[in-house]
Amino acid sequence: MAVGLQTPQNLYPVRGLRLAAMHSGIKNDSTAKDLTLIEIAPGASLAGVFTQSHFSAAPVQLCQQHLSLDSDARFLLINSGNANAGTGAAGLRDAIACCEALAEATGVDRDQVLPFSTGVIAERLPVTPIKKAIPELLARLDADNWLEAAQGIMTTDTLPKAVSVQLEIDDKAVFITGMAKGSGMIKPDMATMLSYIATDAVIEQGELSQMLGQMVTGSFNSITVDGDTSTNDSCVLIATGASAVNVNRGQEEFCQALQLVFEKLAQAIIRDAEGATKFVEVNVEGAATESDARSVAFTIAESPLVKTALFASDPNWGRFIMAIGRAPLSQIDPEHVDLYLGAVRLLHQGLPDPEYSEALGQAEMSRSEITIRVNLNLGDARARVWTSDLSYDYVKINAEYRS
Amino acid sequence: MAVGLQTPQNLYPVRGLRLAAMHSGIKNDSTAKDLTLIEIAPGASLAGVFTQSHFSAAPVQLCQQHLSLDSDARFLLINSGNANAGTGAAGLRDAIACCEALAEATGVDRDQVLPFSTGVIAERLPVTPIKKAIPELLARLDADNWLEAAQGIMTTDTLPKAVSVQLEIDDKAVFITGMAKGSGMIKPDMATMLSYIATDAVIEQGELSQMLGQMVTGSFNSITVDGDTSTNDSCVLIATGASAVNVNRGQEEFCQALQLVFEKLAQAIIRDAEGATKFVEVNVEGAATESDARSVAFTIAESPLVKTALFASDPNWGRFIMAIGRAPLSQIDPEHVDLYLGAVRLLHQGLPDPEYSEALGQAEMSRSEITIRVNLNLGDARARVWTSDLSYDYVKINAEYRS
Repeated sequence: MAVGLQTPQNLYPVRGLRLAAMHSGIKNDSTAKDLTLIEIAPGASLAGVFTQSHFSAAPVQLCQQHLSLDSDARFLLINSGNANAGTGAAGLRDAIACCEALAEATGVDRDQVLPFSTGVIAERLPVTPIKKAIPELLARLDADNWLEAAQGIMTTDTLPKAVSVQLEIDDKAVFITGMAKGSGMIKPDMATMLSYIATDAVIEQGELSQMLGQMVTGSFNSITVDGDTSTNDSCVLIATGASAVNVNRGQEEFCQALQLVFEKLAQAIIRDAEGATKFVEVNVEGAATESDARSVAFTIAESPLVKTALFASDPNWGRFIMAIGRAPLSQIDPEHVDLYLGAVRLLHQGLPDPEYSEALGQAEMSRSEITIRVNLNLGDARARVWTSDLSYDYVKINAEYRS
Repeated sequence: MAVGLQTPQNLYPVRGLRLAAMHSGIKNDSTAKDLTLIEIAPGASLAGVFTQSHFSAAPVQLCQQHLSLDSDARFLLINSGNANAGTGAAGLRDAIACCEALAEATGVDRDQVLPFSTGVIAERLPVTPIKKAIPELLARLDADNWLEAAQGIMTTDTLPKAVSVQLEIDDKAVFITGMAKGSGMIKPDMATMLSYIATDAVIEQGELSQMLGQMVTGSFNSITVDGDTSTNDSCVLIATGASAVNVNRGQEEFCQALQLVFEKLAQAIIRDAEGATKFVEVNVEGAATESDARSVAFTIAESPLVKTALFASDPNWGRFIMAIGRAPLSQIDPEHVDLYLGAVRLLHQGLPDPEYSEALGQAEMSRSEITIRVNLNLGDARARVWTSDLSYDYVKINAEYRS
């Protein structure tokens, strides 16, 4: 059951982009969409970031290879239900076969097709149903199909995740729409499970890559469900240019809107995290370095003992102290640490706050959205991380995933 | 329910050591022992290693202070049910008060008493019941009380943990007996939750410290339940010298016996890990460095997705690949990796083994004792880590810990 998340409404089309999704036969459930196609009009810019896993999946390797050729990407072909990871050379051949089939059907080059997969690891990708579905997928392409596409990329997600923003720049309308999937094996490392964000602004290629790097740091690279980084994380940012509005990293209004889309999508993944009953923000400030701040935030966010206390709504904040205590830090002075649960102060200068009472802590822990704040009082660096709790349902979902 | 672990039998006394344990009133359950005393005869050597947590508990700080004074430690006073951690200066005063009460009752100096605590973090230690129990504890001291003492230090443990070995050196009998507690918040960093190992061999102080450092690396520092390092981890090795047999690190038979005691105690903690239904050994070999080998082993051992698959007896070994893939390594070549589940090969040179079948994998995963073996085929370094699975009961135990 997702925490404060609904099915997306009012998703704006992004001019220059058409989408389609359908059931091809990869998933057993014949009502579940498992194949998604995104068509990009010629002349768009596209930037991608991918998992840092040593065992990156075949589609990730092929995507990176195609992108390195600087060809105009014209199609993104995304399957759910099978990750095509840990499949070796055969997996790579399977991914190539899918790209080739689509290239042949549309008259583009193979390297203008970018493949993406998500689902079970270490099983061969069923290529035949994918090839067979291509004509119908092409026939269904429509600029208004963002919601269907967001459904098509789901695996253990309980809700589709998409965010849309319209803004006005130089008296012209500019749209940003993005979608993402993911609810387990979530600790993106340079990217998220799968996320696609598009705008019709004009953004030069190099600029777009820089922008993507900036955006993921505070969004997809700041979330964790279980600390487990996927073999298939991919995040793609597309600028079709159809609005004829030029933007770059100096355009504050656009960058804020884009950041909002990235953050909302990253948060949506946490709100729909496997078994989640809580949405938790961990803020660490006053750190000597940003790396220290992130280290404390992630140690709290990934501690199984913190996460089970959150699930139980138990203000057992000794576990927060334990987690800060074990964070790999360049510098810490326990006697300067302030710790807050929502508005309630737990520690002041390293000592239990005399004003604290169990009732105050209980009230904060009972909320479905919780903020934990740590001030190390050592410097100016800060970090913000979003996470979920660890519930019976997380165990259930992951113990039964393949059955 | 512990995996392959029974209540210890036939624990040898260690000459020069007497023990006692009783219920003093710290735990609510009046049948549960919560206070343990170990008396050491004059002239023994003692070495300790402690948690590396930035928030080490008051008793840990006081222990380290007392040890630094080079006084002859004569008593270990250990309470369970309360960790006296995150309690600031008041917590330190409480620990001092307990040591002083015991010193006064026995005529030793305060710094000859070493205090230890384990239990809930961030609550004040109840000093009054501890002081009140001291006369009875002293009256109960007996060399034969190892089992009672092992019960006295338990918190969420379901069974007491102790191991005993007798060996003959130079025609003289030498005894080693040790006990440990811990089943959650287990990823000891230089030590374990609480562990006390004693021998009546004669071992010079500096030698004993070196020996302890060597012993913990392959035992308590090679186990993980949840990756959460406690604020109270302490491991103490005592050599009473009562056997009049001199040993040092060169005495192979003694060192092997001592290593066995350390390993069995560390394994006992994992066998009794919170909610454990599996005992899992992760072997990583062929790594470029020992640090790389440990990094891969711990990443597998701590992955929530690996642990839920183990709980489900699901041979979803794509998750092993995922975990290896996200391990922070100095060097890896995915195309050289071999991966085994028990005797079954999953990956050979980075590719799925054609001989593998789901039935073979299922048979291995259904066992209660499981071995995962990775060969990186890069070098000669290796590591071995023991861990447990992640079950509904782990969540239950930790969601309900304080209720």
